[in-house]
Amino acid sequence: MSKSIPNKVYLSEDELPRQYYNIMADMPNKPQPYLHPMTKKPAGPADLEPLFAKALIEQEMSAERYIDIPKEVRDIYAKFRPSPLVRAYGLEKALDTPAKIYYKYEGNNPSGSHKLNSAVPQAFYNKIEGIKRLSTETGAGQWGSALSIACALFGMECTVYMVRVSYDQKPYRKTLMQTYGANVVASPSNLTNAGRAILAKDPNSLGSLGIAISEAVEDAAMRDDTHYALGSVLNHVILHQSIIGLEAKKQFEKIDEYPDIIVGCNGGGSNFSGCAFPFMHETLTKGTKTEYVAVEPAACPKLTKGKFMYDYGDTAKMAPITMMYTLGHDFVPAGIHAGGLRYHGDSALLSQLYHDGFVKAAAVQQTDVFKAAVQFARSEIILPAPESSHAIAYVIQKALECKETGEAKTIFFNLSGHGNFDLAAYEEFLAGKLEDFEYTDEMLEQGLSTVPAIG
Amino acid sequence: MSKSIPNKVYLSEDELPRQYYNIMADMPNKPQPYLHPMTKKPAGPADLEPLFAKALIEQEMSAERYIDIPKEVRDIYAKFRPSPLVRAYGLEKALDTPAKIYYKYEGNNPSGSHKLNSAVPQAFYNKIEGIKRLSTETGAGQWGSALSIACALFGMECTVYMVRVSYDQKPYRKTLMQTYGANVVASPSNLTNAGRAILAKDPNSLGSLGIAISEAVEDAAMRDDTHYALGSVLNHVILHQSIIGLEAKKQFEKIDEYPDIIVGCNGGGSNFSGCAFPFMHETLTKGTKTEYVAVEPAACPKLTKGKFMYDYGDTAKMAPITMMYTLGHDFVPAGIHAGGLRYHGDSALLSQLYHDGFVKAAAVQQTDVFKAAVQFARSEIILPAPESSHAIAYVIQKALECKETGEAKTIFFNLSGHGNFDLAAYEEFLAGKLEDFEYTDEMLEQGLSTVPAIG
Repeated sequence: MSKSIPNKVYLSEDELPRQYYNIMADMPNKPQPYLHPMTKKPAGPADLEPLFAKALIEQEMSAERYIDIPKEVRDIYAKFRPSPLVRAYGLEKALDTPAKIYYKYEGNNPSGSHKLNSAVPQAFYNKIEGIKRLSTETGAGQWGSALSIACALFGMECTVYMVRVSYDQKPYRKTLMQTYGANVVASPSNLTNAGRAILAKDPNSLGSLGIAISEAVEDAAMRDDTHYALGSVLNHVILHQSIIGLEAKKQFEKIDEYPDIIVGCNGGGSNFSGCAFPFMHETLTKGTKTEYVAVEPAACPKLTKGKFMYDYGDTAKMAPITMMYTLGHDFVPAGIHAGGLRYHGDSALLSQLYHDGFVKAAAVQQTDVFKAAVQFARSEIILPAPESSHAIAYVIQKALECKETGEAKTIFFNLSGHGNFDLAAYEEFLAGKLEDFEYTDEMLEQGLSTVPAIG
Repeated sequence: MSKSIPNKVYLSEDELPRQYYNIMADMPNKPQPYLHPMTKKPAGPADLEPLFAKALIEQEMSAERYIDIPKEVRDIYAKFRPSPLVRAYGLEKALDTPAKIYYKYEGNNPSGSHKLNSAVPQAFYNKIEGIKRLSTETGAGQWGSALSIACALFGMECTVYMVRVSYDQKPYRKTLMQTYGANVVASPSNLTNAGRAILAKDPNSLGSLGIAISEAVEDAAMRDDTHYALGSVLNHVILHQSIIGLEAKKQFEKIDEYPDIIVGCNGGGSNFSGCAFPFMHETLTKGTKTEYVAVEPAACPKLTKGKFMYDYGDTAKMAPITMMYTLGHDFVPAGIHAGGLRYHGDSALLSQLYHDGFVKAAAVQQTDVFKAAVQFARSEIILPAPESSHAIAYVIQKALECKETGEAKTIFFNLSGHGNFDLAAYEEFLAGKLEDFEYTDEMLEQGLSTVPAIG
């Protein structure tokens, strides 16, 4: 391999971005306002104050293009950032493609994913506003791990409502959070009205993300010293994740390259958006022709098969009503191994940009996802998370198209996390036990039929 | 935190060392030769050829100070190296110490440890000598994972004999190796005479590292296309691991610092030695006064309580007889959670240097180790491996001494791996279930009494 571009492009600590990028400033059509789940009127800052720090609410509503990253947050980022931009020479060789493939690797921290990028500022802003304790929910465990770590660093308490079935099946994720000092509670629990109500009906309830959200929100609402934290979907989370794309832009500059296609997997939107939006600034303000592709599981096809409408953010109808692509708040996606991509809706920002034609979407089947994951591991060393492997599956498809056409396109994707805690899924794949899933139109219509016309 | 030294010191790919460092060249007393386990005569290259590539045997015997790293190996190193040198600002603050603490982080690859540094050249040298397949044993799973990855990268087959109890209790480690294409066999197995003999006596045998070594060696000896690979102890493994210390020296130069104390945990010696020996070159050739400390578990105290004598490398008496610090080849250490540190003996190189007074040794109890691990995780973010946490426990002790005396010593240690696969051990610690262990003199004498006078 003779090459002028190294395997990894680093930034020094001094080059760590000092401001987040807020795409709201550049959007031709701003997202519709959130509606209050009870009144169905536009939700104002006061509606959010029982749950969130004022600084985070400001970020949620802000139309400022750049927002300063506090020094205290940058000091902690410097422990695990800037993350390297990696040239996938091994994968390119395995695919025999003229395409140039790059990825940003966000798994080099013990939460195992990009989630720590938002957990740190969320803990910080709450800390300086006098909040002593954060509550949250976790399904697969990545977000709960990230918030546990962030709270440990700022000396805050952290209570994580972990979906009962994950609590029982993923004891290591629970122990990881406890190692960082978090109080991990199996949800439904006896600690909240929401939990007690479920347990009264079914003492053996396996729980759900919806129930866990309700418990975490109730916990925060009933205590003055406690706020709630969410790991994706919201504007301020996507703002924090812009650190990924901002770093990547500087890294591409250093090697005098620029992506033709930018790819990310899509659950609640923060990983794709964090990676893509800083580049999309160029498209929105200067008309650059980059392609942006959000990749979702065929088992949860909100962008490719959902509708753009006002819907509840959660099953329990406690979260803000959001104008977004949705499969219906009662929609329960087929069981797949990318737990982070099973959300029925999407972020307001990404939904609007997709609606306006700036973002493309693709859906992939999970056997293709794991096939791509194994090929990536064997050629690039890193074991990718199932979520991130959705992006890999799409990138491989594009790279093979380049092989057909002879085009040397530059493809960039976000490798949002590692798969060290997902080996049970790899085992099923290697044993040939994973199944694909395709919804019929009837099944999708049923999910959407439960959404009342709102707004 | 105002500071001129960054959290992480990087090297560019161009600065990746081009040669390994061989301490044999600088030792005032060379290690005694290995003896053949049957003849008890000094073992020559021909004795090793059924098992190892010629280039590796040359490295094992070489007294050349610097040995070139092949370009193919450097190209793969560039996927996960150079590893960052990290200033432990978080830990320093938590300890309120004037000491400056640095660590090299070797866990940023999916084997989870420094082991990949030697797996890559071992696979490479075998590949170019026409070998198609490597066999090895694994206990905790780190070395087996590393060799699986290296074989995947060079398109070689890999068979890993995994101790039955680990195979059953650590299914994720098994799946990790399988993901990289390895054939993982529970040991004892029906594939070898050694395995069949054990199973004939006890069909439910849980296996041991000794048995797994016997099976892997037999597998390699009976097939022309297959060689054997070992993850520690041998001179050529320690040579490959010198990449750690060589990088660290360049990194310290960049920030105009130099360590006063260098610390590593000690199992078979490759991690400590890889980190320390390139610095020890300065001590051996120029008399620099750096302190080198190998930290071992109190439950396996070969340096602090063993004897310097000729002993077998394995229970089955098939490995070379080595002049080393040992607790006796029949010694079975107490059960502890640092599986990588349970070897009864040590490398010939490290043993000789310890005997000659260039290296100090310390033993730590496992509750102190996990206490240190948790403090490190909460202040430095990374979740350390139990093995590496032996070094951390000692570093914390030294840093607290600096606090007493007011000395701002520079302490450097090797964070050889992450603890993502060791959460069961963390869980036991957090639940207060871990126990410490101290041997009586009688117990230690009994282990050593089985070693015949050899050589």
